[in-house]
Amino acid sequence: MTEQGEGAAAEAIRALSSRGWTIGFAESLTGGLLIAEFVSVPGASAVVRGGVVAYATPIKHSLLGVDADLLADYGPVHPEVARQLANGARTAFEVDGRPAEVGLATTGVAGPDPQNGIAVGTVHLGVSTPDGSRVQSLALSGDRNAIRAASVAAAVGFLLEVL
Amino acid sequence: MTEQGEGAAAEAIRALSSRGWTIGFAESLTGGLLIAEFVSVPGASAVVRGGVVAYATPIKHSLLGVDADLLADYGPVHPEVARQLANGARTAFEVDGRPAEVGLATTGVAGPDPQNGIAVGTVHLGVSTPDGSRVQSLALSGDRNAIRAASVAAAVGFLLEVL
Repeated sequence: MTEQGEGAAAEAIRALSSRGWTIGFAESLTGGLLIAEFVSVPGASAVVRGGVVAYATPIKHSLLGVDADLLADYGPVHPEVARQLANGARTAFEVDGRPAEVGLATTGVAGPDPQNGIAVGTVHLGVSTPDGSRVQSLALSGDRNAIRAASVAAAVGFLLEVL
Repeated sequence: MTEQGEGAAAEAIRALSSRGWTIGFAESLTGGLLIAEFVSVPGASAVVRGGVVAYATPIKHSLLGVDADLLADYGPVHPEVARQLANGARTAFEVDGRPAEVGLATTGVAGPDPQNGIAVGTVHLGVSTPDGSRVQSLALSGDRNAIRAASVAAAVGFLLEVL
């Protein structure tokens, strides 16, 4: 949670707020750091519905609706998983029949070891809005905590790009 | 995420691991910081199933099964809500028909303003295990980020007390 990161999250919250939009998060490798970045901004509660940290793979299906066959065939670190996580975050955080307008998702390999042959630092981000969904794939370097922090910053940046 | 905090989370992960137990989180005011503390420990993935940040009140019912009447009557900052959040975290993170053995929950008022007449710094923690559930209530002082950080440290400490 650098000052730069906080600034970007605050900017995203202002952008969401100006549209009357809410947001839900679906995190894997970032493990709660992404939503924490948003919640640290005063006034976040008007915009942030909540988040799921789906750390165990089956949770990505049970709570966020990622296709079980996709997870079985490709594992959790895949661009299409990021897209489905972002879509699932909108649905999971439905309130009064209204899904969250935005879902923001992370999945990837923080290390220290590669996962099913996928290199450490491979990260896929997903953003879903009423206008559709987009995925961004990254190859990050650094240790476990550096990769997680860079993933958070990249996810906030990707959201700002889309908004 | 002080070094002290990381040490306590690592100790909790060792204690869970030695029993073959898994853990799910249900967070409100801590907004993802509690699970992030655990996930930052290498080897966390064997023990941490995931977490829900139930920031909007209705999500505490829809994803974590907190009684809707309880929320309507007392609001989200109440010892019994903390207990039900902890129980709900176990169920939400069921895998292959097996709930998480431990649920750890936070709810409270981080500020800057009191919430429905409840003072800033009022925090309730819940722990649920196969042996039952316990609640701890705190009156913390400091600004929004200090209260959240102190809540995370207290939750990890409470879990260690119970294990």
